[in-house]
Amino acid sequence: MSIITIVGAGMMGSAMCFPASDNGHQIRLVGTPYDREVIQRIQQDNFHPRLGMPLPPNVTAWQYEDMDEALKDCNLLIAGVASFGVDWFAENVLSRIPDDLKVLSITKGLEDEPDGSLVPISVAYNRYKLAPGRKLSICSIGGPCISMELCKRLHTSVALCGDDSDVLHWIKSQLITTYYHIQPTRDVVGIECAVAMKNAYAVGVSLAIGLAQRNGEELSNPQAALFGQSVREMLRLVHLFGGQTESVIYATSDLYVTINSGRNRKLGEALGQGMTLQQVLDKYPGMTLESIPIITKAARALRKRHELGTANFNKFPLLRHLDEIINQGAEVRIPWNEFG
Amino acid sequence: MSIITIVGAGMMGSAMCFPASDNGHQIRLVGTPYDREVIQRIQQDNFHPRLGMPLPPNVTAWQYEDMDEALKDCNLLIAGVASFGVDWFAENVLSRIPDDLKVLSITKGLEDEPDGSLVPISVAYNRYKLAPGRKLSICSIGGPCISMELCKRLHTSVALCGDDSDVLHWIKSQLITTYYHIQPTRDVVGIECAVAMKNAYAVGVSLAIGLAQRNGEELSNPQAALFGQSVREMLRLVHLFGGQTESVIYATSDLYVTINSGRNRKLGEALGQGMTLQQVLDKYPGMTLESIPIITKAARALRKRHELGTANFNKFPLLRHLDEIINQGAEVRIPWNEFG
Repeated sequence: MSIITIVGAGMMGSAMCFPASDNGHQIRLVGTPYDREVIQRIQQDNFHPRLGMPLPPNVTAWQYEDMDEALKDCNLLIAGVASFGVDWFAENVLSRIPDDLKVLSITKGLEDEPDGSLVPISVAYNRYKLAPGRKLSICSIGGPCISMELCKRLHTSVALCGDDSDVLHWIKSQLITTYYHIQPTRDVVGIECAVAMKNAYAVGVSLAIGLAQRNGEELSNPQAALFGQSVREMLRLVHLFGGQTESVIYATSDLYVTINSGRNRKLGEALGQGMTLQQVLDKYPGMTLESIPIITKAARALRKRHELGTANFNKFPLLRHLDEIINQGAEVRIPWNEFG
Repeated sequence: MSIITIVGAGMMGSAMCFPASDNGHQIRLVGTPYDREVIQRIQQDNFHPRLGMPLPPNVTAWQYEDMDEALKDCNLLIAGVASFGVDWFAENVLSRIPDDLKVLSITKGLEDEPDGSLVPISVAYNRYKLAPGRKLSICSIGGPCISMELCKRLHTSVALCGDDSDVLHWIKSQLITTYYHIQPTRDVVGIECAVAMKNAYAVGVSLAIGLAQRNGEELSNPQAALFGQSVREMLRLVHLFGGQTESVIYATSDLYVTINSGRNRKLGEALGQGMTLQQVLDKYPGMTLESIPIITKAARALRKRHELGTANFNKFPLLRHLDEIINQGAEVRIPWNEFG
């Protein structure tokens, strides 16, 4: 039995309590400053108000002021913050842990570098966000997982990526259950790039939903064409950065569920209907849209590479159009003839 | 302007009238023996009863007794029959045409050979179904296309495959429109295998729908896991036969639309609910299920290859389970632990 500390009491961080608890571990769920009321409520009667259900038995909830206590003697730290919280996590959590503590990140995101590289969150922690010279063992998880369904213990299949096979297999052994299927892989850049990019492309495919609503049409063929182009561009991007085709499969099935619901679907749909980004943001105040920085950074990286001659941005017409819509106020006008 | 003869007045063959007509061609839609009443009705008032709409102007409808006349001077023959009609098509249509007539097949299907090879329909015509020594130029088309949406001129993106680049580009020039996007490729085995297999895997992914209904559950995560495994197995199969990753993208987006509706979805859903294949067939009499021979032949080919040591059937656990359900009366029990 291990002690697993999860930081971030949002949907996905909290959902990780279920497979972890079913493995008999002791779980400490620590809130960020945004989770104060959630943690209070769990401390009161074990009910998680965002999930709308009680947490499993061996979970305790902690406010972030008690972080040191919650990290004490723990065997695995799970980073359950959103991509907007990674700097906070590095400063307030990673700074306090011993170098040999294993870390599992469930945050999706990318950072772009001046030479047009795209760096996954787990790499970015080690490259920029820790004290110089410090190196942590950070794995991450990606794949199609609606958190509420994981809480209900429905079959869920994800990839677990990291540099060290032994660490991967140990983390897998801590979390695998009869319903939570975990496939270890060392293709960090492939998994993390692809599952971050699927947030961007979920907006792209959902444009077809909004366009169809605007025109009173059906949408299967256009949506499928956008889906295919999304997979094509994710593959190209992952191959460009040395990742593997297999990893894109997780992003493809993740894209498939993401389009059915969620915030990125809502954004794409609204843009397809003809709303501007600002109108969408005004309509849903406070909605965090991880797709926006991902589209922006990926497009910036590819544009940079195009200038440097290390990539052809024209092979990413859907991403380029998403960037034009999000960052240049362009109207939705799918570049069908550039697809392929 | 060309003369294009389409044989088969089913949904997909008939839908091809629309892009062909928008290119200003003269189109002759010829019914099979099953289409007698459809053709009669079109001859009467131009209304296509299966599509529920009139055909575009420059289309004429012909009974199959008038085949010779309908084939006279035509520049392109489109095979619009279902996979169950390929022998009929070879005997009654291909036997009558000159060797230099270009043929475009829209039929999805595979034939398995004694050594465990899987042969696409367009290749099977030339290999078995024509008079010995005869060779025709047969291209084929595949990708996500709901026929009714093509009739409504919605954006549709498909791959056109064949051996000869000049022929591919000529056919593309005859059919491309502002809404019908055609990508030529010489990866015949990749496109045809993948788009045939997606019918099999549409049953596989739809099992999750029926299982969820049976248990009163949600289904996104299990369905996505099945979707991912389907893409993985389609890639493996296509690579096994020398096809390309890019071609599987068309099958992936085709799988995506096929799951949303259609007969293979209905079959998978019913099996997932706990019905036997026979009960499903009894419930929907006369429903043609192209997935059944595809599952059967692909599983037979891979089992054969496994025996010969030229493939590992264990890398196709979803296909194997589908074959067990369809051909051995097995209960649905998704082999989650074998996925990956």
